[in-house]
Amino acid sequence: MTASLDDLEAWLWATPNSNRVSILFEELGLDYRVHPVNIRAGEQTAPAILALNPYGKIPIVAWRSEGVRHVLFESGAILMRFAEQAGRLLPPDSTAREETLAWTMVALTGLGPLSGQAHHWTDLAPEKPAAAVRHTVALVERVYRTLDGRLADREHLAGDYSIADVAAYPWIARSHWTTVPLSAHPNLERWFRAVGSRPAVARGMDVPAGVRMA
Amino acid sequence: MTASLDDLEAWLWATPNSNRVSILFEELGLDYRVHPVNIRAGEQTAPAILALNPYGKIPIVAWRSEGVRHVLFESGAILMRFAEQAGRLLPPDSTAREETLAWTMVALTGLGPLSGQAHHWTDLAPEKPAAAVRHTVALVERVYRTLDGRLADREHLAGDYSIADVAAYPWIARSHWTTVPLSAHPNLERWFRAVGSRPAVARGMDVPAGVRMA
Repeated sequence: MTASLDDLEAWLWATPNSNRVSILFEELGLDYRVHPVNIRAGEQTAPAILALNPYGKIPIVAWRSEGVRHVLFESGAILMRFAEQAGRLLPPDSTAREETLAWTMVALTGLGPLSGQAHHWTDLAPEKPAAAVRHTVALVERVYRTLDGRLADREHLAGDYSIADVAAYPWIARSHWTTVPLSAHPNLERWFRAVGSRPAVARGMDVPAGVRMA
Repeated sequence: MTASLDDLEAWLWATPNSNRVSILFEELGLDYRVHPVNIRAGEQTAPAILALNPYGKIPIVAWRSEGVRHVLFESGAILMRFAEQAGRLLPPDSTAREETLAWTMVALTGLGPLSGQAHHWTDLAPEKPAAAVRHTVALVERVYRTLDGRLADREHLAGDYSIADVAAYPWIARSHWTTVPLSAHPNLERWFRAVGSRPAVARGMDVPAGVRMA
C-alpha cells in the first residue's frame, strides 16, 4: 500500500457482496477485524450501521491512514479503492484497465443485482408470482450465457486474475439461489472451480467464520 | 486527456445509462459521433453490436489512441475511465475519491437496477403482479430516501459535482418510470433541478437528438 493502513475493520455477513471484500482482503494479505452483521435479523439497519452507511447495507470497511479515519461502503468501491492502493488486481494501463473495469461492472451492476432479484422471487418472497420468477431467472440466464461465452477462450474475465473475477465469484458460488444450473455453462463452471481453488478465495468465502446462509 | 483521443464514437439511445455517457462527454467537452441503437426495436442484439459488447447492451463507446482502437462498454466503466483520463469529476486524493466511488456505486448498482426493475413491473411487463410492483417500488423508495437524506446538507452526492451526480441524474430524470414521486423527496428534487440547470447536462439529455422514450 502506498499509504499506511491501520486498524482495518469490516462489517460483513455470509453474503456474496461481503465475500467480495473478504476475498479481496485475503488476496492482498491484509489484517482485518470482522464485525458480523446478521442481515436476516435486520442488523444492517441498526443506528451504529446507519452511522457508517446511511443506505443501511453491508459490506462496510473502516481504517485509519496517517491518523485520519476512513469509512467506505459499496463492495464495488471497496474493490476499486484497495486494488488501486495495492497496485494489484486492477491494471493501471489503459487497455487492460478498461477491460477490467468493463467486466467488473458486468459483475457489479448485472450479475449481482439480477441474481439477487432471482433469489428473491424463487426463494425469499412470501408470494412468488410466476411472471416474476420467469423474468428474473431469464435475466440471470442471459448474464450467465454472456460470462460463459466470455470464458470460452480465456482463463479470467479480463486479462489476468482481477477484481472482475473477485466481484463475480461469490455470486456464481450462489448459483443455486437463482435456480440457473451452473453445469449448463461449462466455461463458467471451469472458471468457478479454478478461482475457487485459490487459497485466498477459500479463506475469504469462510468469513465471517462459522456463518452460513442456505 | 493525457493520451490522444481520436474518432470517438458512442452507441446510444434515449436511456438513462446512455445519458450518463452523453452527459459525461458534454461535461468534458469531447467531440463524439453518435450511433443511435433503438433498444425498443431490439437493435442492441444485432451482430454488429454483439461484436462490440457480447452482453448486447448499450452504451458502448470506441475511440483510437495512438493508433490503437479501444472499445469500452458499461456506463460505470465509461464514467470512471474518461473521468480518470481527463482528471475531472473523480478526485485523485484518497478521502474524496472514496466518497465519490461509494456514491457512484450507489447510483450504478442500486438506483439504476432498482429503478429499471420498478419500471418493468409498473409499466413494461405484460403481466404486473401486485407483489412485484410493491416490492420493486419499495426498493426504489428506499434508495430515494437515502439520496434525499444524503443531500439534506450537501449540494452534490460526494463533495464537488462528480461522476456520482452524472450516474444518478438520468435515472432521477425518469422518476415517473418508477411511480415514486420526486416531490416527496425535496432535497433530491432540489439537487435534480440544480444538476439539470448545467448546460452540459441539458445537452447530454438530448442525445441521440430527437429521440424520446415515454
